[in-house]
Parts: sequence; C-alpha cells; structure tokens
Amino acid sequence: MRPLILITNDDGVNAKGIRTLTDVAMEFGDVVVMAPILNASGKSHSLTSERPLRVNDIKKSPELSIYACDGTPVDCIKLAVEYFCPRRPNLVLSGINHGSNSSINVLYSGTMGAVIEATALDIDAIGFSLLNHNPEADFSSSLPYVRHIIDKVLKDGLPDNVSLNVNIPRLPAKDIKGIRICHEAKARWLDSFVQRTDPLGRPYWWLTGKFECINPPESSDEWALANGYVSVVPTCPDFTHYESINKLKHLAL
Amino acid sequence: MRPLILITNDDGVNAKGIRTLTDVAMEFGDVVVMAPILNASGKSHSLTSERPLRVNDIKKSPELSIYACDGTPVDCIKLAVEYFCPRRPNLVLSGINHGSNSSINVLYSGTMGAVIEATALDIDAIGFSLLNHNPEADFSSSLPYVRHIIDKVLKDGLPDNVSLNVNIPRLPAKDIKGIRICHEAKARWLDSFVQRTDPLGRPYWWLTGKFECINPPESSDEWALANGYVSVVPTCPDFTHYESINKLKHLAL
Repeated sequence: MRPLILITNDDGVNAKGIRTLTDVAMEFGDVVVMAPILNASGKSHSLTSERPLRVNDIKKSPELSIYACDGTPVDCIKLAVEYFCPRRPNLVLSGINHGSNSSINVLYSGTMGAVIEATALDIDAIGFSLLNHNPEADFSSSLPYVRHIIDKVLKDGLPDNVSLNVNIPRLPAKDIKGIRICHEAKARWLDSFVQRTDPLGRPYWWLTGKFECINPPESSDEWALANGYVSVVPTCPDFTHYESINKLKHLAL
Repeated sequence: MRPLILITNDDGVNAKGIRTLTDVAMEFGDVVVMAPILNASGKSHSLTSERPLRVNDIKKSPELSIYACDGTPVDCIKLAVEYFCPRRPNLVLSGINHGSNSSINVLYSGTMGAVIEATALDIDAIGFSLLNHNPEADFSSSLPYVRHIIDKVLKDGLPDNVSLNVNIPRLPAKDIKGIRICHEAKARWLDSFVQRTDPLGRPYWWLTGKFECINPPESSDEWALANGYVSVVPTCPDFTHYESINKLKHLAL
C-alpha cells in the first residue's frame, strides 16, 4: 500500500502553495488534504471550541481527497486524523507557506502549529515555507528541496517527538547553496500595532510590526536563509527550558 | 517608583481568576490589566491581523488601570506594552487560569501564549493556573504560592529568555505539599472531536478530547500535580530540539 500523506496549511485550501505541495506529495503516496477554507495565518496552535466545525468535500478519490474546514490548521489535523483519513497517515505536510516561518515566527504560525500537533499525535511531520508572501509566488526553485526532504523522511523517519521546520530562501534555483540543519535564531517583532482613528473619531489598533534579529549565529536559521541556504530546524512540542530547572531550585518550597 | 506589573489572562477580563491575581499583584506594585473582553481559551499564541482591535477603558488610576480588548491574550500583551503601560513593565502575570496548563496544554493555552510573548519581548513573566475549571473556583489555597513566586521573581529576576508556567493542584491549603521545579510531561489529547448531526441532517464536529499522559516521571509537572505539589516549569519561546541537529545531518545537501 502506498504511504498516506495528510496535508494542511494556514493560507487556505485554495492557496498556490498547498496546491504545489499536493502535486509533489502525490509522487510519493496517496494524499488527503484538509485545510482551512480561508486564510488562517497567525493562528498558531489555536483550537476552535466555542462553535462546531463544518467540512466541505471538494474532491474524493483513493489517490487524492480534498476537504475544506472552517477551523484552524490544528483543528484540521485532529479532525482529519480522526474522521477523514482512510488509514493512519504516514506523514503530515504543511504549506508550502507563502512567507517565512523561521526563528520566532514558528510561535505564531498556523502552518507550524499543524506540524507540531501532528508530532504530538506521534506522526512524522514537515512544515515548508518559502520566503515570499506573494499569492502568485514561484515555487519552482523550492521543489528539488521539498522532494529531497520528503523522500528522506519517508525512508528514514524522524527522531521521536521531533518534526521539521523547513524554510526556503527567495532565490533562483542556481543561487540556492544547499540545506543546513539549524536552530531557531532568537528574534522578536517590535512596533507591533499602528494606532489610527476611524471615521467616527474612535481609536483602533491594527497589527503590523518590525522584525528584529540581531547578529544571528552561523548555526541559526536566519543566518542560513540570509546566506542562500534552505534551513531545516528540528522542532519539538515542549517549551521546557531544561537548563533552568536546576537554576530555579531556590523557588521550591 | 513601585514595580509596574502587567496582567492578562485567557478567561476574559471579568473572570474571578484575574480579579484574584490583580488583588495580589497590587501588594507588590502598580498594575495595568489588559485582557480579552470575552473568553479566549485555546487561542495559543495567535495574533489578530485580519481586523483592527478595539479597547475599552474600564478603570484608570496610577495604581490600577483596567482595559478590555477584543483581541487574543498575545495581542493584549503587545498592545499594552506599546500603548497602554505608563512605563515598561517589570513583570507580566497571566491568569489565574481556571483549569490546568500543565504538560502539552501549554501549547494550546492563551494564558501561556501571553507569558511566552512577554519573554520574547524580554520581560519576566509568570503564568498561574489552578486545576479547577469552575468559574466560581476557590483560589484561596493558591494565594501563598502566588505571593511567594511573584516575590522571588521580582527580587531575583528570571534567567534570560525563560518564563514560568505555574500550576496549582485543586486541594485545600493544608494538603498542598510544596513547590517542585519540573519539566513538561509528554502527553496528548485524543478523541478530539465528536461528530453529530444538526436538525437539518448535516454533520458537524465539536471539540472535546481525552487527556492521555502515561506514567509521567517524578521529574515532570503531571507527577508533581498528581502528588499534591505546585508545579513550576521554566518555559522558553524556542521549539528547537537541539539534540536532533546532529542526528539530522544526513538531510543536509
């Protein structure tokens, strides 16, 4: 039996990135797509609990089924694994995201929320992002790397409790230098909101922000991307800062 | 000048838990509360980008200002730090949450999303949660631990890039054995959705779930809580699984 690959994203089921990823995945196995109906960027690991979810069947066949859900990317993974996949998926893919999910962006990312949820469910998972927000972005120079990484992971598997966060620089194929295994760079978003006044004179605040990443080390994803490499970060659904456990013993009672 | 303490939560600005935490925080400094107008549980680290945010002033004084925002807990922290705090906060507190944020729940938690955002902004931050979902939960046995931890963190600070996730068992004060510094237990939520049929015969899926945590080790938060201790987990806004970086070198190109 061919591997079953479950795919989602946060840009929505009709985005060019998920259609591209679906085409590649079908070279490797049967595919189920369950993705948000509309854009769900910035939804992180959020769940929908205050209302029920609906699902539209867009296409159903043994090789490729496509469903659109009105929930978050994490909802999509949970719901697809429990109700819509004909068997347990061998691999979850998310993306290809239109825009970076490197460094701290992984925290906010719905694309990576879905990947980390799959890991928590003990399914190997990979998030792919291209550093290009354009809805018509050209994914062609990403494809050799997407193929290479899917192939390796299907053959070798991933370490327990680990998924991959893959970011691809916005460069022509000939200028991409290769793949580096990295850690997240320390970074943050500042100047997050602009304040404006509505036509009735009342204030409102709208999300914006300036990305700040100072001198990322050569071992980090930001350095890799800025220097023409595809970055691969092993990610894990555990926020514990293990080195601090001993340092904080004075807090114990 | 007294320390400035910024407070948020995910149960909403009117929850008993945030009112309790505000009362305690005012013993230590001036307080700004900026919290979601309504319940924002399960919002994780999500941001609001598709629409502007509005803020209601509930109370304004030098010692205590309270604002309600129609965004997520992470929105609340960003917006308060940039526009509503009279000076840079010395400490961010989130909670007291009505319900557990131990082990994998930290991923989904709006309470902890806000804490981790504060850490990314280089502000010391603590999330408090009581293992009791009841809106009328009795927080009295939590208060000595909340006071102790706030006091220690204001005096000693926290390690760089580290915040605290504090969970308190649902026990009378005399039965709480103390505080343990822990790591997150490995756990997951299964059977996440129930499928039902609406009055017009169409299917819908509603979030539910069964928590699974098998044999948590004595070093973990689930063990501490099950054995009558307050758990304190040092958390960090970095999902990198550092030990896997070398194991994955074969993926590099």
